[in-house]
Amino acid sequence: MAGVITLLTDFGLKDVYVGVVKGTIATVNPSLVVIDLTHQIPPQNILAGRFALINAYPYFPQGTVHLAVVDPGVGSQRQGIAIQLQNGYLVGPDNGLFSGILDQYTACAAVRLSHSQYWRTATPSSTFHGRDIFASVAAHLACGARLQDLGEAIDPKHLVRLSPPNYEKTSTIIKGSIQYIDIFGNLITNIPSTAITSSHWTVMIKERVIPQGTTYSDVPVGETVAFMGSHGWLEIAVMSGNAQTQLQVSWGELVQLIY
Amino acid sequence: MAGVITLLTDFGLKDVYVGVVKGTIATVNPSLVVIDLTHQIPPQNILAGRFALINAYPYFPQGTVHLAVVDPGVGSQRQGIAIQLQNGYLVGPDNGLFSGILDQYTACAAVRLSHSQYWRTATPSSTFHGRDIFASVAAHLACGARLQDLGEAIDPKHLVRLSPPNYEKTSTIIKGSIQYIDIFGNLITNIPSTAITSSHWTVMIKERVIPQGTTYSDVPVGETVAFMGSHGWLEIAVMSGNAQTQLQVSWGELVQLIY
Amino acid sequence: MAGVITLLTDFGLKDVYVGVVKGTIATVNPSLVVIDLTHQIPPQNILAGRFALINAYPYFPQGTVHLAVVDPGVGSQRQGIAIQLQNGYLVGPDNGLFSGILDQYTACAAVRLSHSQYWRTATPSSTFHGRDIFASVAAHLACGARLQDLGEAIDPKHLVRLSPPNYEKTSTIIKGSIQYIDIFGNLITNIPSTAITSSHWTVMIKERVIPQGTTYSDVPVGETVAFMGSHGWLEIAVMSGNAQTQLQVSWGELVQLIY
Repeated sequence: MAGVITLLTDFGLKDVYVGVVKGTIATVNPSLVVIDLTHQIPPQNILAGRFALINAYPYFPQGTVHLAVVDPGVGSQRQGIAIQLQNGYLVGPDNGLFSGILDQYTACAAVRLSHSQYWRTATPSSTFHGRDIFASVAAHLACGARLQDLGEAIDPKHLVRLSPPNYEKTSTIIKGSIQYIDIFGNLITNIPSTAITSSHWTVMIKERVIPQGTTYSDVPVGETVAFMGSHGWLEIAVMSGNAQTQLQVSWGELVQLIY
Repeated sequence: MAGVITLLTDFGLKDVYVGVVKGTIATVNPSLVVIDLTHQIPPQNILAGRFALINAYPYFPQGTVHLAVVDPGVGSQRQGIAIQLQNGYLVGPDNGLFSGILDQYTACAAVRLSHSQYWRTATPSSTFHGRDIFASVAAHLACGARLQDLGEAIDPKHLVRLSPPNYEKTSTIIKGSIQYIDIFGNLITNIPSTAITSSHWTVMIKERVIPQGTTYSDVPVGETVAFMGSHGWLEIAVMSGNAQTQLQVSWGELVQLIY
Repeated sequence: MAGVITLLTDFGLKDVYVGVVKGTIATVNPSLVVIDLTHQIPPQNILAGRFALINAYPYFPQGTVHLAVVDPGVGSQRQGIAIQLQNGYLVGPDNGLFSGILDQYTACAAVRLSHSQYWRTATPSSTFHGRDIFASVAAHLACGARLQDLGEAIDPKHLVRLSPPNYEKTSTIIKGSIQYIDIFGNLITNIPSTAITSSHWTVMIKERVIPQGTTYSDVPVGETVAFMGSHGWLEIAVMSGNAQTQLQVSWGELVQLIY
């Protein structure tokens, strides 16, 4: 069975950076299956990378290695890490990028990437650990290397955490915010389906009431609808349209769900 | 021999949607070969997706599964379908996206995707059938599942058709229009090479006469030229330049070929 | 061991051109591993493609076939070529695109692609040699075809060369220029690390002095720093920022390194 590696970076697709990471993986073993999650995380935006990883993680085979590089601290004292979970591995910088996944899944073990025999070179560039350390380590993991061989063990409890945006909940209302806007202009809030305890509700955003639905096509073309999205979060969308443009909202806007 | 799946969507590359579709395929079988056609179909533009599929379809191996998702009606009553042709398979929504291919190739059989044991989950999201139904079905087809196992048979004649743009033809003139503009600014018309019955002609667009050529380099740098493009349609281009910008035209502009 | 092919083009990702090239490769052999370097070389900009190829070439396995298409002269008298180096192969138009690699690595042999049995079709489109000739030839090479079978031998010394931008060097100063700006706004100069003979220096650009560092994080957020980048060239960056925007510079701007 071919090992699977996913890639998530803020490298974009204009330069050859992503290609070079894949070349490094293929140099370890060209039979590894490499799947792009996205390379268009806003530059150095760790929280956006954290959100994207949460949404992608559940959909990959057992044992997949998730290599993620949004790394403003490259070359500083921040550590490179690999983490083992029950159903997969995480490789990248210890800066909170993985903390969304770690909020939902238990880390079995973690190591600091200090054993340079698993790197592309023992003298890595100070600016491109994605190529010189992480890609090579991820490839070796996907080929069957053991986590403990990659460096000294560290306590997963000491991994860097970044706080997700919070929502507030009372018996009649949940106050949240927009945490992500996708390319369709759909507004993804930080209110998870598990927080909603009644089956009937409406949503308010910018003094507009949005009706409850179950999908985009519950309303006529051009009308807004609120529903539980495929991510597991409350979403606001416009049938055959763009909710961001139509409601004139942006990241962080207040969203209230009212029973 | 590894099975091949192509992907065409309007998901863009900023979000993890495409990665998650590929994760779902890899969960069925990581050895499947997945090839992106494009993920930048203008959002919900079924006709643009239809055009792109016509142009890509002939260049893939026998048995390739083409998974396409431009799906404004997801979650509504529109059906999910799989179609078997002599040289490949089509999987996606029944909304006309495949009707350009079906105009040129005969469908051997078609099914409505109703057998949930081939889905990622028996309780699919109402907004992301690309992940929960189509990706998994396409992977099973590429691994050798039989079309008839995926759901109940439907008559291919009853599949939704979308009309392509028309051209008009007399003995001295063909009146067509621009149906696609590529990233180089090349203008691709809806006049197929098979419609042209004389070997000498000129083209008129916006009262300008464009000379007949066989390739971009038939004219000096900066000059316009009309020729039969690699798609099989009459194209208008500018040598080392951008015809859209230079001629100030857009999608749908009238193009006349005169013998 | 699966053969590896890299792709570098100016085709962009909006159209299906790249997908069709991959379909042509998969039709020869779907087990070939295809890695995108980039498809966003500025249209017909051979020098930008030449730069990108230099930076990607060292990071791929022995025997990799690098297929590159930035080809304003397609359909003219320019030749299609394949080149064998000690550690890989190059396939594409003979227009200087490969001359940066050829400045650094010795060509063992080269052929003009004249044997149409290795093409997708013996009657190739005059506008899409990437699909009809180069993709198929690259796939056959990656499957083990011998270079000399692809066409008649030509002397590698006669391959088209494009001049790289030059730098000037005295005992106290190196005058170079910005040759590339990446998506982070990092400024990559044409001054290689091998040209710098002292360990202490500063950089001047637009009358601003940029301090020497070894990485992005050597300076506070928002400050500029100059260092040897992961490409092997002198780079100028801004910690957690965009040097292009902050310094208001563009491609070709003068950069002086002063001992």
